[in-house]
Amino acid sequence: MAKELKELTPRSVDYSQWYLDLVIKADLAENSAVRGCMVIKPYGYAIWEKIQRQLDDMFKETGHVNAYFPLFIPKSFLSKEADHVEGFAKECAVVTHYRLKNDPDGKGVIVDPEAKLEEELIVRPTSETIIWNTYRNWIQSYRDLPILVNQWANVVRWEMRTRLFLRTAEFLWQEGHTAHATREEAEAETIQMLNVYAQFAEEHMAMPVIKGVKSASERFAGALETYTIEAMMQDGKALQSGTSHFLGQNFAKAFDVKFADKEGKMDYVWATSWGLSTRLIGALIMAHSDDNGLVLPPKLAPFQVVIVPIYKGEEQLSKIDAKVEGLVKSLKSLGISVKYDNADNKKPGWKFSEYELKGVPVRLAIGARDMENNTVEVARRDTLTKETVSFDGLDIYIKNLLDDIQANIYKKAFDFRTSRMITVDTYEEFKEKIEEGYFIFAHWDGTSETEERVKTETKATIRCIPLEGDKTPGKCMVTGKPSVQRVVFARAY
Amino acid sequence: MAKELKELTPRSVDYSQWYLDLVIKADLAENSAVRGCMVIKPYGYAIWEKIQRQLDDMFKETGHVNAYFPLFIPKSFLSKEADHVEGFAKECAVVTHYRLKNDPDGKGVIVDPEAKLEEELIVRPTSETIIWNTYRNWIQSYRDLPILVNQWANVVRWEMRTRLFLRTAEFLWQEGHTAHATREEAEAETIQMLNVYAQFAEEHMAMPVIKGVKSASERFAGALETYTIEAMMQDGKALQSGTSHFLGQNFAKAFDVKFADKEGKMDYVWATSWGLSTRLIGALIMAHSDDNGLVLPPKLAPFQVVIVPIYKGEEQLSKIDAKVEGLVKSLKSLGISVKYDNADNKKPGWKFSEYELKGVPVRLAIGARDMENNTVEVARRDTLTKETVSFDGLDIYIKNLLDDIQANIYKKAFDFRTSRMITVDTYEEFKEKIEEGYFIFAHWDGTSETEERVKTETKATIRCIPLEGDKTPGKCMVTGKPSVQRVVFARAY
Repeated sequence: MAKELKELTPRSVDYSQWYLDLVIKADLAENSAVRGCMVIKPYGYAIWEKIQRQLDDMFKETGHVNAYFPLFIPKSFLSKEADHVEGFAKECAVVTHYRLKNDPDGKGVIVDPEAKLEEELIVRPTSETIIWNTYRNWIQSYRDLPILVNQWANVVRWEMRTRLFLRTAEFLWQEGHTAHATREEAEAETIQMLNVYAQFAEEHMAMPVIKGVKSASERFAGALETYTIEAMMQDGKALQSGTSHFLGQNFAKAFDVKFADKEGKMDYVWATSWGLSTRLIGALIMAHSDDNGLVLPPKLAPFQVVIVPIYKGEEQLSKIDAKVEGLVKSLKSLGISVKYDNADNKKPGWKFSEYELKGVPVRLAIGARDMENNTVEVARRDTLTKETVSFDGLDIYIKNLLDDIQANIYKKAFDFRTSRMITVDTYEEFKEKIEEGYFIFAHWDGTSETEERVKTETKATIRCIPLEGDKTPGKCMVTGKPSVQRVVFARAY
Repeated sequence: MAKELKELTPRSVDYSQWYLDLVIKADLAENSAVRGCMVIKPYGYAIWEKIQRQLDDMFKETGHVNAYFPLFIPKSFLSKEADHVEGFAKECAVVTHYRLKNDPDGKGVIVDPEAKLEEELIVRPTSETIIWNTYRNWIQSYRDLPILVNQWANVVRWEMRTRLFLRTAEFLWQEGHTAHATREEAEAETIQMLNVYAQFAEEHMAMPVIKGVKSASERFAGALETYTIEAMMQDGKALQSGTSHFLGQNFAKAFDVKFADKEGKMDYVWATSWGLSTRLIGALIMAHSDDNGLVLPPKLAPFQVVIVPIYKGEEQLSKIDAKVEGLVKSLKSLGISVKYDNADNKKPGWKFSEYELKGVPVRLAIGARDMENNTVEVARRDTLTKETVSFDGLDIYIKNLLDDIQANIYKKAFDFRTSRMITVDTYEEFKEKIEEGYFIFAHWDGTSETEERVKTETKATIRCIPLEGDKTPGKCMVTGKPSVQRVVFARAY
């Protein structure tokens, strides 16, 4: 890849194009031959593996286990919960046949009309229906509860306008589906998982989030309440990064899932579901990266350190190889992932710009003078700064540096968000500020009509009713009617 | 679950029913509402996670990376490789529409006839076609090779007769797809991955396997050669446990994937693919388990040790709790997974039979007398033997015991297989022995006709032409024609 091929459209010129350039040029993903479906390339998938490993550990620490349910959902299941079918029927892939046969008129294949399914199958857009149909057989008494299950899976929603990672017809995600004996327990689970998501976003993705509850019109189809974490991208837009739903007894009623309590009384089971997807990779890119390429927080970088030797001839290289060998070993023993790139078919300059584009947090370069002085050049991706550091104690130095980079990336995102959050009291000021890319804390009268009007007139939506912070009542900026507390408006992905 | 509910049909009475009983009663999997698709329950999925983690490490150690390709394959792609479409068109799920709408005649939903796809999509039965269509854009020159990619995914093959884990319409697997500049390199990769599978089967699943090459009629649709590992189940039948395919240039030609070599000469790329699925859980069950339940090799057991306290009253329990706490910690620090089951709603006897059914390799029981004597009762699942062991040094004792159990389970399976392998020279003896459940090493003339005749007359198939062992030529047991070497015949799952 020549230097110019790596150049990205600057964010200031076209943010959207910058994003697309970056996804493609950093080898994260690409569009496939199937409309709306992406290919997640090895470097992008390695980030997803880091996300998975970390979240999976957090789910298990909170008592959850993994399981796997069918890809297909009988069409009739969707209809059992009225809001649910309303939400998903309009964008689902439908399997109608189970065989192809040779085309009598040509050398291709056609659908065999004799192999029509009695009931069509939907490729799961989410699994509440098939899972609650299964739970009916798993649950008889309070002793069978709670069920704390998570699934890692692919899902399909036939979106018309797609965008790599952010909105694709097929995506990868995890979906937790829990069953409880009481309302209180299910509500506590919903909040617990919201907090797990927020902790993951802040500590691992280095991305500050606002935790809150969705307005009625933005609720998951079939939920009583939807909780969300909302993150700010560098253009001031919001990205919903994970949702946790309190489903009440809706799905238990739709699939007739009852249990006997300690006194033998029968009641419907209480439910939650919560999900987070490959969309998060889009968030990660848009929250931190710059015009030179990706900026990855060390905790999610496929590799955290790259070492590039600068040499003339085999002899010099073999000396550097020998010196680096011990460093690689001691970094690995500290749990740091490291790549030593001594491939001789690429120049150091090419490698430098490649790893910058790929967002490797720390780059070490070691040349003849460094060998003499027992030093190494250490470059940080987040600040694009360099310094010369002694080889002695370098492993510990790098370990601390990675912590520092993780914290700095978070701080940068946090400070940016702070500079783009504003409290507004008039609809006039609102319309002005929303154009500039802000999270706007404003009073709202609680009605879907006002919410819809704001959306139509400004393209801003209510991202959430925040759980934390100022809870003072006031008057709706649009209608002047009473408002319980300020809510967060923003334009969103 | 009452005691009698845990009882399994004995293997001697009905092997097939024993298997099904065990899968259901040990909570591994169950049939779903969708024909042929299973629900993998948490305990079964935990075994799959162990398999995944270990194999994934082995793939990465051999230089492979993970990626993700679309679930859907355009219908026309299947037809591009002639053998491939022949192999898969007859059993594939076909997506024809992308939307439902309300049924005007009722309260359900129907397929929206206006939302018909221009080209039908196949739910992937395997991903060679979509992946080689993608590789076309990834490969220009020898510098882009090799590509060493693996995918963890679900696939669908519309099987008519299904059986939990062994044959299901949807299953989980990994599929490796590699691209190489030379025939030799692709062949070496094919063999390397066969060896990885064999090593995994023997060292982790404790299941001896025969490595070999498939006869032409059993080859993967589109491959030049298919290599296999074949394991013996306790009824003497064979189970194909993993396959590695040398695809030659077939898919490169079908999807026009060429590269420029060092001299600038264009040639088609060489390919391999290799896969291993949740079917392996069926193999694991059938290779080792007994009439009391699962017998899991320690390396794949969801937890390796369970500790059951035997007590009267809270005070005694809290003393045992305190004593066990340190043991749990030191076992964990040795990398041993352990569950301390001090739940008071179940009797020790119930727990004993539950963990026996679930195949936990080591069970510790600790009661009043043990507390006095500083001992614990150690029960092995594989031999169903017990002994009293001192608490001092117990962690190291258990670590060694787990190694011993792993080795013993392998040895038992190996010895069983040895007792059921036989060399046969006449078709008469063959027909007799095949009824008794043997792997039969016999001479074959190399023709599909003879192979087909043996299959029709005895239900035995050629499992493989072994890579190792006796290579002496001879005469076909059926036709008397020349044979290059003995091949392995068996009935198979």
